[in-house]
Amino acid sequence: MTRQQLFEQIQKKQSYLCVGLDTDLGKIPPHLLSSEDPIFEFNKQIIDATKDFCVAYKPNTAFYEALGAKGWASLEKTLNYIPKECFTIADAKRGDIGNTSALYAKAFFEQMNFDSITVAPYMGEDSVKPFLDFQDKWVILLVHTSNSGSHDFQLLETLDGKFVFQEVLYASQRWATADQMMYVVGATHADKIGAIRGLAPDHFFLVPGVGAQGGDLEAVSHVGMNAQCGLLVNSSRAIIYASSGKDFAEAAGREAQKVQQEMKTYLRKYLH
Amino acid sequence: MTRQQLFEQIQKKQSYLCVGLDTDLGKIPPHLLSSEDPIFEFNKQIIDATKDFCVAYKPNTAFYEALGAKGWASLEKTLNYIPKECFTIADAKRGDIGNTSALYAKAFFEQMNFDSITVAPYMGEDSVKPFLDFQDKWVILLVHTSNSGSHDFQLLETLDGKFVFQEVLYASQRWATADQMMYVVGATHADKIGAIRGLAPDHFFLVPGVGAQGGDLEAVSHVGMNAQCGLLVNSSRAIIYASSGKDFAEAAGREAQKVQQEMKTYLRKYLH
Repeated sequence: MTRQQLFEQIQKKQSYLCVGLDTDLGKIPPHLLSSEDPIFEFNKQIIDATKDFCVAYKPNTAFYEALGAKGWASLEKTLNYIPKECFTIADAKRGDIGNTSALYAKAFFEQMNFDSITVAPYMGEDSVKPFLDFQDKWVILLVHTSNSGSHDFQLLETLDGKFVFQEVLYASQRWATADQMMYVVGATHADKIGAIRGLAPDHFFLVPGVGAQGGDLEAVSHVGMNAQCGLLVNSSRAIIYASSGKDFAEAAGREAQKVQQEMKTYLRKYLH
Repeated sequence: MTRQQLFEQIQKKQSYLCVGLDTDLGKIPPHLLSSEDPIFEFNKQIIDATKDFCVAYKPNTAFYEALGAKGWASLEKTLNYIPKECFTIADAKRGDIGNTSALYAKAFFEQMNFDSITVAPYMGEDSVKPFLDFQDKWVILLVHTSNSGSHDFQLLETLDGKFVFQEVLYASQRWATADQMMYVVGATHADKIGAIRGLAPDHFFLVPGVGAQGGDLEAVSHVGMNAQCGLLVNSSRAIIYASSGKDFAEAAGREAQKVQQEMKTYLRKYLH
């Protein structure tokens, strides 16, 4: 998917919501457990209920790997079920030496046909570049994550007077343009998103941390939005586990719509 | 597996070789391709031929994920086939927010029963700690990797006058002892291994980059060895693809034995 196509979908749906499919056998409604593939059954109903209100889906691979080969099969079925107009993100946080990253790229872009994958930057350029060899596929690079540990190394200051996360931002812009790379910037760092937007004016940011992790959607939208929106704001638990009963899908749909309505307001207010 | 058990195996086999099972359908001998599970068939014969000469096996998960659910099943079968006395490493380079890292830990330590997993440090403490909640299981943290991109961020200098990789070394020693954590240090940085040993005297180092990547085994052993050896030196391609013919397993065994003989000499010379 191209940046323009993504923006068109955002305009059409008046939403920049990404629904995180962090599907956990311990948390899905018990009545699904007797179905042949409970994980896929849950995801299918969540997708049906939310697809009009979001523009992207982001399964975190950990939830599927925890179930072994069976979980991997559920992930493949889920991906195939997501409507073609939606942007798909493999939240895999991969990154390895060049020839190995090339295999991860093959796994997520060819074997599974995701639009994008999250990549960890620690191993540097040759660990990221193989993901950029695919037409209309995206790298979403970890820059400043939403968790508490994001302070440990991302906020180290270098001799250049920059934080490590800023060094990642500078270096990676030499590897790819805003048409192939997005950045992960946690909603819990709303104070820094404006500055990061200054350093990367055109890039899309994938913003986790709204919802269960406490980030503020309006604050993020205010400082982070650009002329093509430039934001995909993720919510996982607050949507997919909105109800633990038989009405889980309806409840997820209602929750996604609530966020979409809020986003519609912010698109009017902050798109520039 | 405990550190003491690993050292006993090193003494018994007079080897600190780790064989990397980077098994690629495009590189294995063509006569295997007609078998039901060519990846597992290849690994099985490689393990049979090398198990007396190495103390650890390290499948890199990328090679299995590139084949989807089927590859994941081959990985599970391979792990179950590895003799119990060998240390097993999931070279997965995972790391995510706390609750998600906990799921990766479950995937690799419970679902699959690996002894250890490689973890990327960029997301900090809460991304690493969940892997430490398992008895006799290990985190192998990326510190200074063997690839060219290791220069991009790992060698940034901080205001404290340290490289970023040294900051990782310091911080992570507050999270776990040498009984639960090892470090990845590339053989291509032999000049720095001595200094890293100074900062982490008791930890095991997993050292990739000998063989196809050009690292020097004697140099690494000289500066890196401690009283319990403290080294697992990995070789992948140079061993498993020693021959592309029907004699691939024999050739791999010969190659592994050659490395083991060299290691035997270095254990006499440098163990202290």
